[in-house]
Amino acid sequence: MNKPTLDHLENSGEFIRRHIGPSDANIADMLKTIGASNLDDMINKVVPAEIRSDDHYDAPAISEANVLAEIRGIADRNSVMKSFIGMGYHGCHLPPVILRNLLENPGWYTAYTPYQAEISQGRLEALLNYQQLVIDLTGMEMSNASLLDEGTAAAEAMTLMKRVGKSRAMTIFIADDCHPQTIAVIQTRAGPLRYEVIRGNPKTDLKADKVFGAILQYPTTDGSVEDYSLIVENLHRAGALVTVCADPLSLVLLTPPGEWGADVVVGSTQRFGVPMGFGGPHAGYLATRDAYKRSMPGRLVGVSIDSQGNRALRMALQTREQHIRREKATSNICTAQVLLANIASMYSVYHGPKGLKRIAERIHRLTGILAAGLARMDIAVETSAFFDTLTIYIDDVQAVHDRAVKAGMNLRPVDDHRVGVSLDETTTAADIESLWSVLSGETNVGYTTTALDLDAIEGIPAKLRRKSAILDHPIFNTHHSETAMMRYMRELENKDLALNRAMIPLGSCTMKLNAAAEMIPITWPEFSNLHPFAPADQVAGLLDLIQELEEMLVKITGYDAVSLQPNAGSQGEYAGLLCIRKYHQANGQDHRHICLIPSSAHGTNPASAIMAGMRVVVVDCDHAGNIDMIDLQAKAERHSNDLAAIMITYPSTHGVFETMVRDICDLIHKHGGQVYIDGANLQAMVGICKPGEFGGDVSHLNLHKTFCIPHGGGGPGVGPIGVKAHLAPYLPNHPVITQAGPETGLGVISAAPWGSASILPISWSYIKLMGGEGLKRATQVAILAANYIAKRLEGHYETLYKGDSGLVAHECILDTRQIQDNAGLTVDDLAKRMIDYGFHAPTMSWPVVGTLMVEPTESEPREELDRFCAAMIAIAGEAKRVAVGEWPADDNPLVNAPHTLDMITDDNWFHPYSRESAAYPVKILRRSKYWSPVSRVDNVHGDRNLVCTCPPLEAYINAAE
Amino acid sequence: MNKPTLDHLENSGEFIRRHIGPSDANIADMLKTIGASNLDDMINKVVPAEIRSDDHYDAPAISEANVLAEIRGIADRNSVMKSFIGMGYHGCHLPPVILRNLLENPGWYTAYTPYQAEISQGRLEALLNYQQLVIDLTGMEMSNASLLDEGTAAAEAMTLMKRVGKSRAMTIFIADDCHPQTIAVIQTRAGPLRYEVIRGNPKTDLKADKVFGAILQYPTTDGSVEDYSLIVENLHRAGALVTVCADPLSLVLLTPPGEWGADVVVGSTQRFGVPMGFGGPHAGYLATRDAYKRSMPGRLVGVSIDSQGNRALRMALQTREQHIRREKATSNICTAQVLLANIASMYSVYHGPKGLKRIAERIHRLTGILAAGLARMDIAVETSAFFDTLTIYIDDVQAVHDRAVKAGMNLRPVDDHRVGVSLDETTTAADIESLWSVLSGETNVGYTTTALDLDAIEGIPAKLRRKSAILDHPIFNTHHSETAMMRYMRELENKDLALNRAMIPLGSCTMKLNAAAEMIPITWPEFSNLHPFAPADQVAGLLDLIQELEEMLVKITGYDAVSLQPNAGSQGEYAGLLCIRKYHQANGQDHRHICLIPSSAHGTNPASAIMAGMRVVVVDCDHAGNIDMIDLQAKAERHSNDLAAIMITYPSTHGVFETMVRDICDLIHKHGGQVYIDGANLQAMVGICKPGEFGGDVSHLNLHKTFCIPHGGGGPGVGPIGVKAHLAPYLPNHPVITQAGPETGLGVISAAPWGSASILPISWSYIKLMGGEGLKRATQVAILAANYIAKRLEGHYETLYKGDSGLVAHECILDTRQIQDNAGLTVDDLAKRMIDYGFHAPTMSWPVVGTLMVEPTESEPREELDRFCAAMIAIAGEAKRVAVGEWPADDNPLVNAPHTLDMITDDNWFHPYSRESAAYPVKILRRSKYWSPVSRVDNVHGDRNLVCTCPPLEAYINAAE
Repeated sequence: MNKPTLDHLENSGEFIRRHIGPSDANIADMLKTIGASNLDDMINKVVPAEIRSDDHYDAPAISEANVLAEIRGIADRNSVMKSFIGMGYHGCHLPPVILRNLLENPGWYTAYTPYQAEISQGRLEALLNYQQLVIDLTGMEMSNASLLDEGTAAAEAMTLMKRVGKSRAMTIFIADDCHPQTIAVIQTRAGPLRYEVIRGNPKTDLKADKVFGAILQYPTTDGSVEDYSLIVENLHRAGALVTVCADPLSLVLLTPPGEWGADVVVGSTQRFGVPMGFGGPHAGYLATRDAYKRSMPGRLVGVSIDSQGNRALRMALQTREQHIRREKATSNICTAQVLLANIASMYSVYHGPKGLKRIAERIHRLTGILAAGLARMDIAVETSAFFDTLTIYIDDVQAVHDRAVKAGMNLRPVDDHRVGVSLDETTTAADIESLWSVLSGETNVGYTTTALDLDAIEGIPAKLRRKSAILDHPIFNTHHSETAMMRYMRELENKDLALNRAMIPLGSCTMKLNAAAEMIPITWPEFSNLHPFAPADQVAGLLDLIQELEEMLVKITGYDAVSLQPNAGSQGEYAGLLCIRKYHQANGQDHRHICLIPSSAHGTNPASAIMAGMRVVVVDCDHAGNIDMIDLQAKAERHSNDLAAIMITYPSTHGVFETMVRDICDLIHKHGGQVYIDGANLQAMVGICKPGEFGGDVSHLNLHKTFCIPHGGGGPGVGPIGVKAHLAPYLPNHPVITQAGPETGLGVISAAPWGSASILPISWSYIKLMGGEGLKRATQVAILAANYIAKRLEGHYETLYKGDSGLVAHECILDTRQIQDNAGLTVDDLAKRMIDYGFHAPTMSWPVVGTLMVEPTESEPREELDRFCAAMIAIAGEAKRVAVGEWPADDNPLVNAPHTLDMITDDNWFHPYSRESAAYPVKILRRSKYWSPVSRVDNVHGDRNLVCTCPPLEAYINAAE
Repeated sequence: MNKPTLDHLENSGEFIRRHIGPSDANIADMLKTIGASNLDDMINKVVPAEIRSDDHYDAPAISEANVLAEIRGIADRNSVMKSFIGMGYHGCHLPPVILRNLLENPGWYTAYTPYQAEISQGRLEALLNYQQLVIDLTGMEMSNASLLDEGTAAAEAMTLMKRVGKSRAMTIFIADDCHPQTIAVIQTRAGPLRYEVIRGNPKTDLKADKVFGAILQYPTTDGSVEDYSLIVENLHRAGALVTVCADPLSLVLLTPPGEWGADVVVGSTQRFGVPMGFGGPHAGYLATRDAYKRSMPGRLVGVSIDSQGNRALRMALQTREQHIRREKATSNICTAQVLLANIASMYSVYHGPKGLKRIAERIHRLTGILAAGLARMDIAVETSAFFDTLTIYIDDVQAVHDRAVKAGMNLRPVDDHRVGVSLDETTTAADIESLWSVLSGETNVGYTTTALDLDAIEGIPAKLRRKSAILDHPIFNTHHSETAMMRYMRELENKDLALNRAMIPLGSCTMKLNAAAEMIPITWPEFSNLHPFAPADQVAGLLDLIQELEEMLVKITGYDAVSLQPNAGSQGEYAGLLCIRKYHQANGQDHRHICLIPSSAHGTNPASAIMAGMRVVVVDCDHAGNIDMIDLQAKAERHSNDLAAIMITYPSTHGVFETMVRDICDLIHKHGGQVYIDGANLQAMVGICKPGEFGGDVSHLNLHKTFCIPHGGGGPGVGPIGVKAHLAPYLPNHPVITQAGPETGLGVISAAPWGSASILPISWSYIKLMGGEGLKRATQVAILAANYIAKRLEGHYETLYKGDSGLVAHECILDTRQIQDNAGLTVDDLAKRMIDYGFHAPTMSWPVVGTLMVEPTESEPREELDRFCAAMIAIAGEAKRVAVGEWPADDNPLVNAPHTLDMITDDNWFHPYSRESAAYPVKILRRSKYWSPVSRVDNVHGDRNLVCTCPPLEAYINAAE
């Protein structure tokens, strides 16, 4: 036996085998099953030779301990200052019980978007609480369950106003005293839609009859609390609508916009416990009138019933969702910020109305004391009506900023004679005293915060003092001890099926491991407590990490430049298309506006194209799901003069590597178009081939797919774009942080300069941990696992759309239509039955109706793949018993699935199948079984009887009874 | 309405209401129920006026954010160096997946000791794996499931050898090259037992026929790997036994002691993923021959079956437990280090045999390379046979230590010309190069680690190279991907009932909230990565925290000095009694050896007294559970000359504040005795009265009861003692760290200078968070909750042992004997039925047979108290139906409890009660129900067919089938 070398003993690639589920022996065995001799051989069969690349990211894998040590060093190069910058980002205290039991708990962060309502009741309840919170604070009738940030929420509000309003004007007014990043996002979004944007003072510059809507900020970015009621009246009289951007914490004390006529209220719930995180992720919100609910963007949670008549939650009015409406969509929002919305929701449940009032009052009092102290020193405060922010006139602002930094504080630089000071939950009485010193230059001003308590200036005008109650629902008045809170979150978590319990085999969603080592740094204060507009020298470590991540992604994708600003895949798509648009404009080709999109594309593609001001022309696909080259040639030629772009997904949404991809790209380029390659399936390409190399001009990536950002129950997402050099000058930029993008850029996509910056360490760590070798192996094993499942299910389910070699890419589409024909069972019945077997259902009826799309990922252990196959085969067997009439079509384990405990333990059991075959159809379930807390949810009932607020207490009790 | 002051808005006492379950309104309501007008009024009725104190710890409560900021500052004053000190404490990597999902997960850390086997199957499986790990590594036949540390494990081995051996000698030999703290613990323990301790070189100084046993170290403290086979042979021939202290990681590569004749093997599994933590907590282990199993100390997990014939785990041979055997006990070990044992267990499951071998081989190779490099420089390595540790001869040791510290390293100071260097899992190749520089003084020695790889000196003699396999059980060969590991831990956690799901109303065990804010700092590297023998200036922050905690406990208890060294209540008791003994000796009263113990005392009391070399005289109690004063007077007088001490528990184990406590103390003092007040019930006194003030000379405290150290499924424990000034000179000390205790001290109780140092931040934080006011309120509400339950259950269960006012202290004893008489149902039946209602059973048949002792604590929300009362009342109702013959005595929901899912969902149901009444006897269970994974466990079967290793794979499969 040869002595192993030290290098071998180091095993620095250990994480690769931790991340990848199957062992080497498993892999050998699985290869045998699919008839490949090794992984490379398999890849050669799956991926066309002409697009494979030899030049890959090739850094060695680094151990978990060493990556953690390296990122610790990066964190240490950031300085965490007290932030008084405000501008939509505020310090706050995330209660440790929520930090530990929600944000750091895989039961919450590895869950998927709650499309399968039955296995999502826990997070749906948390989101319903979120909607109730927003409704209560804003005084509106309806709220969605989170958007991406305040800026994009305002942009969604703009298009909502246009859709539902009666005005035929094409002009949108935005107040100058909105946050600069909100204004910038509005300007970016308005352009392609051909809205004119007018900025100005709403009291003097707003002509109600010239606009379809106006966007106001409450309180304004410089802290002023204004009475907008007359403006709103004028707008309404002229048939225009009004959107109010509102800090929700201020609404605890201020008359809510819903009480003075706002049509839409948007904002960010960041300061409800979510760390600033250098800009994100946080949850944006959007509330509106009941009348506009069907036009509302984003997800809406509603109350319905299940097949047993019990209360059950689910996403309501799903026909609004853009991925269904395609080019008729009115928004491309897909991923939201569910994990962060849930933090804000739990923060409110924990504090309740009294707690929130105390927090808001305390901030306001400290602001009033600060103002009183400044008045004593004759320092001019320009904000007379305020909640938490003052704009202060200063002779020598530079001296003030210098003193502030010395005192460990950041103030807002407004202009040459003004600074802004915004207080928050973390501000202390001692901070006020420091601020007096910083602002005055006096070391000791001679009085204390306590001394001035009674003299505190009241900043809220009597008329704008809130009188209405908030959060009087019992859910916000029950869980106020830590014990109760911990148990409430555990109870909700336990209702849900997340990756910590079972495979989530969703096609196109890549539910892979989110390793603990990747997650640990994101809650370090050196990442989570940074204001996005903090001076660059205070965030040097994170900026270096961001740059390194960009470089790694460049190397992996074959592009030349990357922007990390888009904070969801949808935003990335939109940004990529705007890049193309801007490029054409710069070349005097502004007329190029046709976007070719294959019929198989994900619905977000056409929605994004429309938003980018393009016209969608659909290209046919052949029976194998490949683009119909003849149709493509015809359409490219027909639109040659106007051709802006093609959007293709590669490998295709049918899970196949089309061999013609280079020809397609060449053809488009020949006609002057640009090639947008949707990166949704990058998972199948990393380390094998590179979209930037085989013809793409731009791609968005989903870091929450391939690069391990956890799905969080439906967000955070991170959707950066990679572009070739000629598009780089048009990447997103930022109005406040100029180094975040090129001056010539397309504008601003997300409110924060680098989007969801605080979670970028996850993807950075993943790439470091895996190294070039590990990344490639992950792709290979992901493809192997998909083929293994397809092979194991042969004879039970036909796999559609195999490549020429008979193999699929990283996912397989299983046809269930024969079962429907023979047994009258729908794909829904099969999917819901999967729940009884302890699995999240695969993706249903997409991209082909009547199919299940399965993507196992590389992280699933062989045993779990086998358990999945066993379940699928058993279900096929059950369907056969229905088909042959052994079980009636209307009473069998599939149509009645999922079976709840209440059903199985009912003393009365009249079904033609046994309790055992309902609950324990395979023996392994005896060891550990997930039980769906509700039976099949009735979507139609819920949409017909729409309730999107917390049901009255009796409903809870009844549900318990 | 008056404007609230800023001070009011600050709400710095917010944590008090977070920690305490019931709200102010709940408390008012509960007071009404028990007939008290306010909390002070209630306390006046419960606690005798003559012992109440006015002088309490009175610091104000501090908010969570501020306490976290303060302790962050403390952490920053510690310097984390690379440790090469060894001596039983080694750096290692805790895999992040275990850190997050076990150590930082309340599902694991809030669980109780697995006495209730049915709700503990998850952690019992983890502990069974631990036993298998130890058995495999040591080559022994049996292992217990963890002891406190290596030193105390060696002491337990000493007494075990005496008990089971045939030698009549009273001498124990311990090798000089054992770790110094192990020698010190042995010396402390041997004294009171009147064993003579001989230290020396086992090869030259050991006379086999003069000793009953010998204790050897393998490898020795200075790193040498010795062949002990001849010594063992000699000892056995002379009828003596041998204990080997062994580093378990070395045993991966070394021939295990079980293969060369060891009778007992002990050690610490710290380096299996458990942070050094400045000395603890870690899990000690003890393995021995099958023949000695009934004499083995500590807990033993074994395999049995449940009432349905399925495999079920439980603690085996429980009659060995000291608290049952009282003065016949042979050990006082009670709390172990379960949470830490589980980490070590999971570390082994995750790495498996190959991973552990790689880790051990790598450490050994690096050591061989280090030695080879030193040889090239003619630096003399004195250790020729080694695993990971070298002792090195150096001319100028001070210069070496100085260079080491400059390089961020700590070496072991051996003597004026020797340093020790011990490598571990965290050592890197670069460290070896640094060590060459540090040891030689050369900045660049001219060769690298890689260059010397092939020249690495092989340190393990061929004869001592392990040939036998380890960990070939499937459990250690399955969960090697992070996904599989995460799910395995989740699956086990889900089997268990911990505080994150329900109240654990155990009397005398104080299962209160372990707040997340208290837990967060303990996994910071500045606490967890400190070696206990690191230079004092590197641990300044933690030493200050320790001192502050001591001062806080002094103030709270009324004592004058505190030692934090004892790492469990049992160790505290023992230390306290040794203090008393030492005091008498110092006063020339060595003959005082009688210890009076009331018949109601916890069994650990007499066990500790015996270990301390005292003779126990039992004092009677009256019908109310109070000490019989007449009997006490008689016995005190009879033993006046020899009276060493009395051990009393206050308030009594019957949950009553005896009014005579001052008289008792005076009486004992009059007879020259010392008063030991067992601090088990300190929970009822904090902020109200102080044992050090009303007559105690010494008490141990259980920080894991009153001061929020989590129970961890049966440890860690922390059992400091408080003493009056006259006993302070006799507190524990330490052979390595002299500042850890007085030179005149009693010796060494635990291996580490400050015991479980790394978790002391938990108690420190709790006291800071609560402040004086909060601590008092916690006591009050705990007493209120106990009385509320007693009152609510009136008419259903009689509460025994109320005080004169009709009230109880912080727990109540519910009589179930009438139910036994009327319905033939045992207290066991009631307790197991509680599981069906979602509760951990209260303490059963202690201190009175046929009773349930309930301690709700202050942390349980009012709703949970009510849910508990509803369950108890419903069970009483069920018992009535049995009593009246409605349900037969041998087939009713109580005798069949707990009901598993398998039972309830069985298609065949022949019981005279419905499935619903079995599973959902109260409606609230429909909302969320805990299901016991096994039905009633058969203890007798398991003890008759003792299996304490992992069952073969088929058993797992069968269990699943």
